[in-house]
Amino acid sequence: MIIVLKQGVTDEQIQHVIDHVEGLGFQAHLSRGTYRTIIGVIGDEERLRSEPLSAIPGVASVIPVLPPFKLVSREAHPEETVVDVSGVPVGGGYLAMVAGPCAVESLDQMRRIAEGVKEAGANILRGGAYKPRTSPYSFQGLGKEGLEILRQVGDEFGMPVVTEVTDPRLVEEVSQYADMLQVGARNMQNFVLLKEVGQVDHPVLLKRGMSATVNDWLMSAEYIASKGNSRIVLCERGVRGFDPAMRNLYDVAAVPAAKLLTHLPVIVDPSHATGRPDLIPPCAMAGLAAGADGVHVEVHDQPESAKSDGAQALRPHEYRELMRRLESLAALLHKQIPRPVERA
Amino acid sequence: MIIVLKQGVTDEQIQHVIDHVEGLGFQAHLSRGTYRTIIGVIGDEERLRSEPLSAIPGVASVIPVLPPFKLVSREAHPEETVVDVSGVPVGGGYLAMVAGPCAVESLDQMRRIAEGVKEAGANILRGGAYKPRTSPYSFQGLGKEGLEILRQVGDEFGMPVVTEVTDPRLVEEVSQYADMLQVGARNMQNFVLLKEVGQVDHPVLLKRGMSATVNDWLMSAEYIASKGNSRIVLCERGVRGFDPAMRNLYDVAAVPAAKLLTHLPVIVDPSHATGRPDLIPPCAMAGLAAGADGVHVEVHDQPESAKSDGAQALRPHEYRELMRRLESLAALLHKQIPRPVERA
Amino acid sequence: MIIVLKQGVTDEQIQHVIDHVEGLGFQAHLSRGTYRTIIGVIGDEERLRSEPLSAIPGVASVIPVLPPFKLVSREAHPEETVVDVSGVPVGGGYLAMVAGPCAVESLDQMRRIAEGVKEAGANILRGGAYKPRTSPYSFQGLGKEGLEILRQVGDEFGMPVVTEVTDPRLVEEVSQYADMLQVGARNMQNFVLLKEVGQVDHPVLLKRGMSATVNDWLMSAEYIASKGNSRIVLCERGVRGFDPAMRNLYDVAAVPAAKLLTHLPVIVDPSHATGRPDLIPPCAMAGLAAGADGVHVEVHDQPESAKSDGAQALRPHEYRELMRRLESLAALLHKQIPRPVERA
Amino acid sequence: MIIVLKQGVTDEQIQHVIDHVEGLGFQAHLSRGTYRTIIGVIGDEERLRSEPLSAIPGVASVIPVLPPFKLVSREAHPEETVVDVSGVPVGGGYLAMVAGPCAVESLDQMRRIAEGVKEAGANILRGGAYKPRTSPYSFQGLGKEGLEILRQVGDEFGMPVVTEVTDPRLVEEVSQYADMLQVGARNMQNFVLLKEVGQVDHPVLLKRGMSATVNDWLMSAEYIASKGNSRIVLCERGVRGFDPAMRNLYDVAAVPAAKLLTHLPVIVDPSHATGRPDLIPPCAMAGLAAGADGVHVEVHDQPESAKSDGAQALRPHEYRELMRRLESLAALLHKQIPRPVERA
Repeated sequence: MIIVLKQGVTDEQIQHVIDHVEGLGFQAHLSRGTYRTIIGVIGDEERLRSEPLSAIPGVASVIPVLPPFKLVSREAHPEETVVDVSGVPVGGGYLAMVAGPCAVESLDQMRRIAEGVKEAGANILRGGAYKPRTSPYSFQGLGKEGLEILRQVGDEFGMPVVTEVTDPRLVEEVSQYADMLQVGARNMQNFVLLKEVGQVDHPVLLKRGMSATVNDWLMSAEYIASKGNSRIVLCERGVRGFDPAMRNLYDVAAVPAAKLLTHLPVIVDPSHATGRPDLIPPCAMAGLAAGADGVHVEVHDQPESAKSDGAQALRPHEYRELMRRLESLAALLHKQIPRPVERA
Repeated sequence: MIIVLKQGVTDEQIQHVIDHVEGLGFQAHLSRGTYRTIIGVIGDEERLRSEPLSAIPGVASVIPVLPPFKLVSREAHPEETVVDVSGVPVGGGYLAMVAGPCAVESLDQMRRIAEGVKEAGANILRGGAYKPRTSPYSFQGLGKEGLEILRQVGDEFGMPVVTEVTDPRLVEEVSQYADMLQVGARNMQNFVLLKEVGQVDHPVLLKRGMSATVNDWLMSAEYIASKGNSRIVLCERGVRGFDPAMRNLYDVAAVPAAKLLTHLPVIVDPSHATGRPDLIPPCAMAGLAAGADGVHVEVHDQPESAKSDGAQALRPHEYRELMRRLESLAALLHKQIPRPVERA
Repeated sequence: MIIVLKQGVTDEQIQHVIDHVEGLGFQAHLSRGTYRTIIGVIGDEERLRSEPLSAIPGVASVIPVLPPFKLVSREAHPEETVVDVSGVPVGGGYLAMVAGPCAVESLDQMRRIAEGVKEAGANILRGGAYKPRTSPYSFQGLGKEGLEILRQVGDEFGMPVVTEVTDPRLVEEVSQYADMLQVGARNMQNFVLLKEVGQVDHPVLLKRGMSATVNDWLMSAEYIASKGNSRIVLCERGVRGFDPAMRNLYDVAAVPAAKLLTHLPVIVDPSHATGRPDLIPPCAMAGLAAGADGVHVEVHDQPESAKSDGAQALRPHEYRELMRRLESLAALLHKQIPRPVERA
Repeated sequence: MIIVLKQGVTDEQIQHVIDHVEGLGFQAHLSRGTYRTIIGVIGDEERLRSEPLSAIPGVASVIPVLPPFKLVSREAHPEETVVDVSGVPVGGGYLAMVAGPCAVESLDQMRRIAEGVKEAGANILRGGAYKPRTSPYSFQGLGKEGLEILRQVGDEFGMPVVTEVTDPRLVEEVSQYADMLQVGARNMQNFVLLKEVGQVDHPVLLKRGMSATVNDWLMSAEYIASKGNSRIVLCERGVRGFDPAMRNLYDVAAVPAAKLLTHLPVIVDPSHATGRPDLIPPCAMAGLAAGADGVHVEVHDQPESAKSDGAQALRPHEYRELMRRLESLAALLHKQIPRPVERA
């Protein structure tokens, strides 16, 4: 931590800062420059971080030196973590290919789509049962019935399933049905929910919030990890941008930026990032090329009558074409797309 | 709803769109332009909104014409709503002056600060008991003990109290202590929480999310209202910006923009919007001048040792000076700052 | 300047950094922390700034301590500068009320509008002769004829005139007609143009670029000042935002933020910031309340047939009403709105 | 163009809008919905665009249907344009690999770097002679001497050269030395400069502005094309973002989004987009994978002592490694990296 003092700070003020810092049990290291004086603070930055040092008179700014997370950091754990999703490894050279409809609508719908995406090469099936919708008047998901359908279809096709949990009271229920729990972008800083998913043993798919920095995102992962669950897969899905041509601004550079800081796998979701089927394939390819550990795509066989976000879904045959391209790119990058384990 | 068709759309595709729209029970109104063909869709736009029309082949884009909220809209309810916060009216010419520390730390701390802000003219006391902190290692609030202190001090000083609720399971508990429930920026689209606060009878202070459009924000208010609770006060607190000079980008124009669309009161929070004590007074003044129905300010008497966000708090004497300026501006604008009702 | 070294930096690398810094003529001040080592660099930060220190192996980041501008900074010149615009003082308690159409269209149009805005209380007349338009097919301004009309009407009504200059080759020509030169938002980092307006003796109205930080903006003012012209008035006119409800995001907090850093006057332009006549009056009020030294508003008497940006113009009677409100706010704030000097 | 009328619009107002539109020579097509009335306007949208229709009483909003550019649009010209840069084709399956230092510093420096990047596979050499720097006190480039060095080194190594032009008065001079003219991000809406480069016969590298939408960017290309020069290569180089971890926010989705709208080639510049050497390789790969027609990278052999932007430059051996990866990706995508033509 570095404390930069204001121009014209008095000696008394400097001494007050030093006393304050030392009173907290840290060492202060004074350095007078030509124009400004700075104080280096030596000790456990973690603990220091929560002290409101910039409120002290004479202090111009306080500059942290260490990243604020530790369990999820590369510094603490240099090798890449491989997260096991009921037999499908993710990270460390293994790619998650997550596909399925935005919302579970019916058993038939899920079966048709699961068949299509599995044939195409997907290894994890997605489908929303509890949907966080911007409007209270939109379809909110089938709830528990949706979970049952998802589980049943996952079992029929031998695919692990991921679904979003939005309510801390339902983490246990959702965990009974799903192999992996998704925390959505709008809940990335719903710390109550993060703590709850930190207490189950399921892998968690943590989407990046729409205005979250890479640091914010990793801090949310740290929340989960701090409760004991380190089986976390991060997912970049676009941040808020200014161009109405796209739903969000796909921040592909956040993938390598995050992977340099954390040992956790990072996948991309070009469906939500762009909201446009014509941009999903190029953005999926870009994600893999940037080093992502997988691709999450929404697929629907009847987008015209989908109950949620149909307009941004790929059709199964489009997904199949995309998977052919992703497979060849994966081979070039020496990455593997594992097949789900057959369960007897 | 207006459907714009792609250039080169075929007559068959046009007919398919018309059939689809009419099959849903709407009227379609075709209009062939020089370069583009459009279809006006007539009927209940609310219902139409959830149909994925842009997934239909030949459709270039779908343009809604009506705003997506209704209970909270000015169109539905032209007069300004006055929200009663245990005797303090907010809106319709009455200004909420909300002040207090970021977090409740102790009974003494709350008493000292409450005394200072009440004398200065504040009419609602704030203090956090359950704190949503970016880091799992930061102080998370005193919890229930914090609620008890806040209630006791509110009673001692005759001020209604507002505190944040972050967990749907605690809405009932928090409601037993607080006069007003705050939904924080990070939870603005925590729809599970919104539905829960929509089912109590307490007024709700709904902060704007960091990347929420005015429409998104009003949709979140609509969530609460749709569950039966229309006692909502909106609060602008800055959106994510690109300039590191300020914590957030204070969107003062959102105040009149929101007030043109909704009958609900809208207040401003320059403390979170700027994160800088030196910018809080000018931004508070700007908020009132732009038409805000109140100002929310964090005040701490010992910012240097505050357990949360001390660096952005005003000291009581600074708050007093600010209130003098706000009072004279309120008088100029013909607005009143009500005093809390003495309760025997 | 503070150099933060990477974790695991070697002693050799540290020595290399120190040698490098000292080789440039600076002092290096080493400070080893628990987790990180930092080097304080002491000397002329200005000169150091252009050195690519972060490219040196082992360096994690380089943190400047001083703001990068000096001629325009408060530190160099603590009192507020008053810029004289042909007899109208701006800054230091004097408010510029700039009004007029987006573009000069004809002598009659300018006369009608000048009459309206002068009666309403404006003290500087604006009108564009060379228009920077997003489309090459839009009206590009009357050019020299526009300058002649503007000058003539300014003289008839005894108002100084401001107009935009977009071409370094025309700075001299425009200076012959205008009292004040405007550098538009799109040209805020057109350094060639900045250097050119820095060499004339006219006051300059420097609009903030759409994605400029406050520092970037002040650096552009520094460009002008570094060429010898310090008669600069800054103008906040909105930055790029994500909400389609408004044309730009009005950054009212940038006004006090800039004024804390610079001695130059800062005015606001709610017309371009919001693009909506219904938001201009509240945002103009907000600007003054936040400490702005004036308000720039586009006014047109026939917005329906304006050749440029008619949709965002106030009508003269709306401007008159706004001026009544601004005058009463100015009185409250102890600011004066000077009248233009009558010239015989 | 679609005109949406306000709720409660009167019949008189509707008639006034229709009369206005028809008075301009367009057809008006009225459509009364359940809640809103709309008017479709039929005719040359280009001409209509500059009419301030939204200023007419009763008009809620005006929605354009056609994109505002034509010469550069795919609709006007469906096949991809191949831009010839002195023998190096760009676009239509041919990839531009542009590399070189930020600034030309000396003949020796340019020779060493040119040798390195040519061996690595670059086909166009870059180097700045006139540098647009944020600070007036930073190195501003060698000017004409820089142009001479760049030309000489380009000739020695048989590579076409690109350099930035920032001053409309120097377009002719720069054209005498360079094979391709760069218009930088800060000048993307310097329309005076765009018109000037539209009048020479050299290919133009048009960087995207930091807050430009894809439409804005293509409109700037349209400016150049409208003056007669259609030899334009677009370059995505990051937009302003909120995360201090990266210099800009690399908008890789803008590449396919732009290519769907225009026939012009689009390349990427991960050096400026990220400002971090560790992110350049993954982002370069992502750009190609997303469909870019080339990659622009800054390379310096002594970044520690570079006079401009050294911290974001790759070293020659890092560029060589990156080129190996880009070549294998290009092969997978069936794209070619042409070698510069040897000129006798």
